[in-house]
Amino acid sequence: MITIPIQIRFSDLDMLGHVNNVNLQHYLDQGKCIYFRDVVGMDITWRDGAFSTAATSTSYFNEVRLDDNIEVTTKITKIGTKSITFLQEIVECDTKVVKCQSISVLVAFDTTERKSVVIRDTWREKIVAYESDIEFK
Amino acid sequence: MITIPIQIRFSDLDMLGHVNNVNLQHYLDQGKCIYFRDVVGMDITWRDGAFSTAATSTSYFNEVRLDDNIEVTTKITKIGTKSITFLQEIVECDTKVVKCQSISVLVAFDTTERKSVVIRDTWREKIVAYESDIEFK
Amino acid sequence: MITIPIQIRFSDLDMLGHVNNVNLQHYLDQGKCIYFRDVVGMDITWRDGAFSTAATSTSYFNEVRLDDNIEVTTKITKIGTKSITFLQEIVECDTKVVKCQSISVLVAFDTTERKSVVIRDTWREKIVAYESDIEFK
Amino acid sequence: MITIPIQIRFSDLDMLGHVNNVNLQHYLDQGKCIYFRDVVGMDITWRDGAFSTAATSTSYFNEVRLDDNIEVTTKITKIGTKSITFLQEIVECDTKVVKCQSISVLVAFDTTERKSVVIRDTWREKIVAYESDIEFK
Repeated sequence: MITIPIQIRFSDLDMLGHVNNVNLQHYLDQGKCIYFRDVVGMDITWRDGAFSTAATSTSYFNEVRLDDNIEVTTKITKIGTKSITFLQEIVECDTKVVKCQSISVLVAFDTTERKSVVIRDTWREKIVAYESDIEFK
Repeated sequence: MITIPIQIRFSDLDMLGHVNNVNLQHYLDQGKCIYFRDVVGMDITWRDGAFSTAATSTSYFNEVRLDDNIEVTTKITKIGTKSITFLQEIVECDTKVVKCQSISVLVAFDTTERKSVVIRDTWREKIVAYESDIEFK
Repeated sequence: MITIPIQIRFSDLDMLGHVNNVNLQHYLDQGKCIYFRDVVGMDITWRDGAFSTAATSTSYFNEVRLDDNIEVTTKITKIGTKSITFLQEIVECDTKVVKCQSISVLVAFDTTERKSVVIRDTWREKIVAYESDIEFK
Repeated sequence: MITIPIQIRFSDLDMLGHVNNVNLQHYLDQGKCIYFRDVVGMDITWRDGAFSTAATSTSYFNEVRLDDNIEVTTKITKIGTKSITFLQEIVECDTKVVKCQSISVLVAFDTTERKSVVIRDTWREKIVAYESDIEFK
């Protein structure tokens, strides 16, 4: 599991006075990008291989306010031939209150052919080495 | 079911050359806002009552490109005491290809108390009248 | 001059209850993209030539609210060897109130070399043909 | 002058492979918000007084890439009866290359009356105390 801090922007908030739920998804996306860069060793400008999102399932338990001090935790729980499953949370750092939990499935994506492809061995090895309790699907 | 067109913005696209999956959620949000305004008759600046998102579950079947001509369809499939369930799709208008399907649960939200509340009768009546096949949960 | 409608999104608004000024710049950007596509005949996914923004100067005269019906007008007022100058306005359609006016300078941009380049003749011809009162700088 | 780091998000980048110029404005906005909070002592959810943007003038000297390590510097250079002028830069931390420079004018804003108002004395005093070389306009 990796943990990254999130810098909340004023414009992330909507007229309900909290971070717009869609913008919370941007925070989760950030967690996945940093995971790809730091754990999988990928170039996240996607010039040499990419992952694309196939499905997300997110529960919003508590609103995120402008002065919250939050972080995103990200781990991969399952790996298949072409896809991986992430489990993520947005957590308030001081109180440890979980604001949001999300499960998402991403597929290895060929940016030229515009289709899902088999996960490269070098990526697979790094993910499996990092996530000791990963499930093979 | 209501159907609205979506104006894709250049900045919605990411470096994979398609609309970022999180920005697709902004399109779905737009569908729900217009539903609240046009079907439920709400002030969507939320000065007098609001709904807040509790959960979303979204499948991304096909990427959305800059020159796609898309629309969002939105209907409410279930209604409970405090919550409603939306079913939405992003559809390419010309080919009718479904790009994305999403189920989301929203709760009536008291912006002063910052908590979920019972759905107002006036809202409930309009929703039930509009959605003839709605399920009561 | 071209005129395009803008679809305001709920998430464009901030806690002041109006469209965030930065998001107004996204609307202006949309005007320029459509100009490049419809007048200059460019592929605005920038796979074959691009323009990049060098400077913007924007005055915000009146706030844009969620229920405003707005459009963006866009014209090119000056053309140089490598750069063009846009003049744009965000206008409320019904009242013709000008919400925002912006002047911006864009340069032809080589996405491989990452630097400004001379404007292609085919682009220049289309711009000059369209803008009868263009100034040469 | 205050200096804040910026967390670049993957979705800030556009298809030109750099941070979209409009999203750079979001970074500048963040600098101003933190200035209002930390120097002026304001509640930046704007429940008790606000500033609204009247004009921005921004030069983009160098593109910002995903792996750049950037910060925003923010100072107030002028103060009038109702308005203040900011000078800001986006700087690459390691190389000290200035990516972007911006001058912006903001006005004290009454969120109920929806109009500009005189800057409160408590705010004025904090700004003037902090910016020793401020110009009175």
